[in-house]
Amino acid sequence: MPTQAKGWGTDAPDQPLRPMEFERRDLRPNDVAIKITYAGICHSDLHTARNDWGGTRYPVIPGHEIVGTVTEVGADVTDHKVGDTVAVGCMVDSCMACDQCLEGWEVFCREGCVQTYNSPDRHDHTISKGGYTDHIVVRDHFVCKVPDGMDASKTAPLLCAGITTYSPLRQYNVGEGTKMAVVGLGGLGHMGVKLGAAMGAHVTMITTTPEKGEDARRLGAHDVIVSTDPEQMKAAATRFDFILNTIPVSHEIDGYLNLLGRSGRMVIVGALTPMPGFTGFNIIWWNRAVGGSAIGGIPETQEMLDFCAANGIYPDCEMIRMDEVNDAYERLLKNDVRYRFVIDMAHGL
Amino acid sequence: MPTQAKGWGTDAPDQPLRPMEFERRDLRPNDVAIKITYAGICHSDLHTARNDWGGTRYPVIPGHEIVGTVTEVGADVTDHKVGDTVAVGCMVDSCMACDQCLEGWEVFCREGCVQTYNSPDRHDHTISKGGYTDHIVVRDHFVCKVPDGMDASKTAPLLCAGITTYSPLRQYNVGEGTKMAVVGLGGLGHMGVKLGAAMGAHVTMITTTPEKGEDARRLGAHDVIVSTDPEQMKAAATRFDFILNTIPVSHEIDGYLNLLGRSGRMVIVGALTPMPGFTGFNIIWWNRAVGGSAIGGIPETQEMLDFCAANGIYPDCEMIRMDEVNDAYERLLKNDVRYRFVIDMAHGL
Repeated sequence: MPTQAKGWGTDAPDQPLRPMEFERRDLRPNDVAIKITYAGICHSDLHTARNDWGGTRYPVIPGHEIVGTVTEVGADVTDHKVGDTVAVGCMVDSCMACDQCLEGWEVFCREGCVQTYNSPDRHDHTISKGGYTDHIVVRDHFVCKVPDGMDASKTAPLLCAGITTYSPLRQYNVGEGTKMAVVGLGGLGHMGVKLGAAMGAHVTMITTTPEKGEDARRLGAHDVIVSTDPEQMKAAATRFDFILNTIPVSHEIDGYLNLLGRSGRMVIVGALTPMPGFTGFNIIWWNRAVGGSAIGGIPETQEMLDFCAANGIYPDCEMIRMDEVNDAYERLLKNDVRYRFVIDMAHGL
Repeated sequence: MPTQAKGWGTDAPDQPLRPMEFERRDLRPNDVAIKITYAGICHSDLHTARNDWGGTRYPVIPGHEIVGTVTEVGADVTDHKVGDTVAVGCMVDSCMACDQCLEGWEVFCREGCVQTYNSPDRHDHTISKGGYTDHIVVRDHFVCKVPDGMDASKTAPLLCAGITTYSPLRQYNVGEGTKMAVVGLGGLGHMGVKLGAAMGAHVTMITTTPEKGEDARRLGAHDVIVSTDPEQMKAAATRFDFILNTIPVSHEIDGYLNLLGRSGRMVIVGALTPMPGFTGFNIIWWNRAVGGSAIGGIPETQEMLDFCAANGIYPDCEMIRMDEVNDAYERLLKNDVRYRFVIDMAHGL
């Protein structure tokens, strides 16, 4: 029997989020039902709510940084049990049979992964509803374990901001002695600083705002470059092995490429948009590269949670009530959050 | 005592090359004098002769794909002896003390390497004169050995076209089973096909011209994609681990990025120019990257010569006389060469 669920969603791009009720499906044999305790607010939630990227299916209920407690498991579920503290990120299902799924990169499923919200279910074709809800039903493989002792209240943002920054650091072997820079200090950037420092890198924050530089040092950055100062940028030429670029909008990359040393790599994780041109010489000379990285697969997401638990790495969270979500969206638009809003469901929906 | 040298150079961007005489310096203790037997013609020679990139110091004598015989060595030279068959590429000196030089990447010398032509000497500040000459004087470290048994007549183009394609294949671990594509079939592209196949990669030629595709198969390519056919390009989406992009002019990269699979890399070796914009999504999705690569260092150049000797890899050369150089330049402008002109000095200057 499907269950009644409560959540907050929106009916149109120009409408605020409001409480709404809907049905969660009855558990399939490999499903897990989760009572949601915390839900992070990602900028993608806002983009989708307002149809910035097109393709929003209204009413939409966002949220893909989810932490909660298992309340029921399907007949075939062996990895999770009632009472477990678990987490769900950007995906809730995929084909689990293609090369990408079999290699642990479900995000690139050949049939397309089912996203946590605004995405049609593989079986009943209903549109997925995200984490701004009292409970969720998710295929077991896509449920991660929150390690014992981890602070669940601060864990939710790791499911998107955490894995999106952890994955490229691992892909590019960031570690002890890596000269790393982070461009942009927001939800992703502040996790990049913390994770890079925890992996042993020497982390430099590159920011337009000197005050953010000070904040970056508090988060673990060893050095700061103010990118609007041409002298500082010039002095940093060829200094870095790796740059994590979290700028979420279209931007010139030549100036950052020049900061990379021989075989240096810059990885873009924020700007999905059309980007302006760049100068071929700036990647040919010094054998540089500019890459991108998309979230991460489920095995790596679990690895990231384990790493954060073991190293005490958490996002800086501002806890809010569900009914404060519309105010939070307005503040997010003004970058007025340090660095992630988390909805505490204990206050009710 | 300086020696009189003969060569072919030009006095101005709009002038043909003509015979000219000049002085080669007396040997310093670590210098090697080389009688030139073969000189390859690189498109950079033409660009410099015509001042396409600015900065040409006239009169200029081009040529940085050089093979010859040692005729004299300085007092401190121990690695080379009179009679050796040797080769010189794009560089003839560097500081040999900075991090890049000490790590074998003299091309990125912190003080700037001395290029084989059109570049001021580190000591006497005379402007270097290239390989379209009867002899050259080069610092010993920058002289490579042509392995015993190698066909010297076909070796010269390896010193630029060879190392420029060999180096990125090594940097990106191209080997047995790599699904590799080469974009553009010219001097660089035809070496990319041969080297990739010799390293065990499955090589696909991507070309605008079906006839070049047939030629690529002769050179060792296993497959061909005609890039002007949208159906072929669509069918090849996510097919490749590595793309060697030898297009020498500004070009759109989005279409090629889409051919890369997860963590696929495209390396640009030709287009030093401003490039048009690209779509962030196309590198973020599938964790792709676009990089560049510049020639290669001296140790890797020697490694490349040894690899080519061991595997019988040679460029396809069209032998010409020195006095045919101006015709060769005109044909080069029309891509009318398969795939490298080599000046045979046996016919005199």
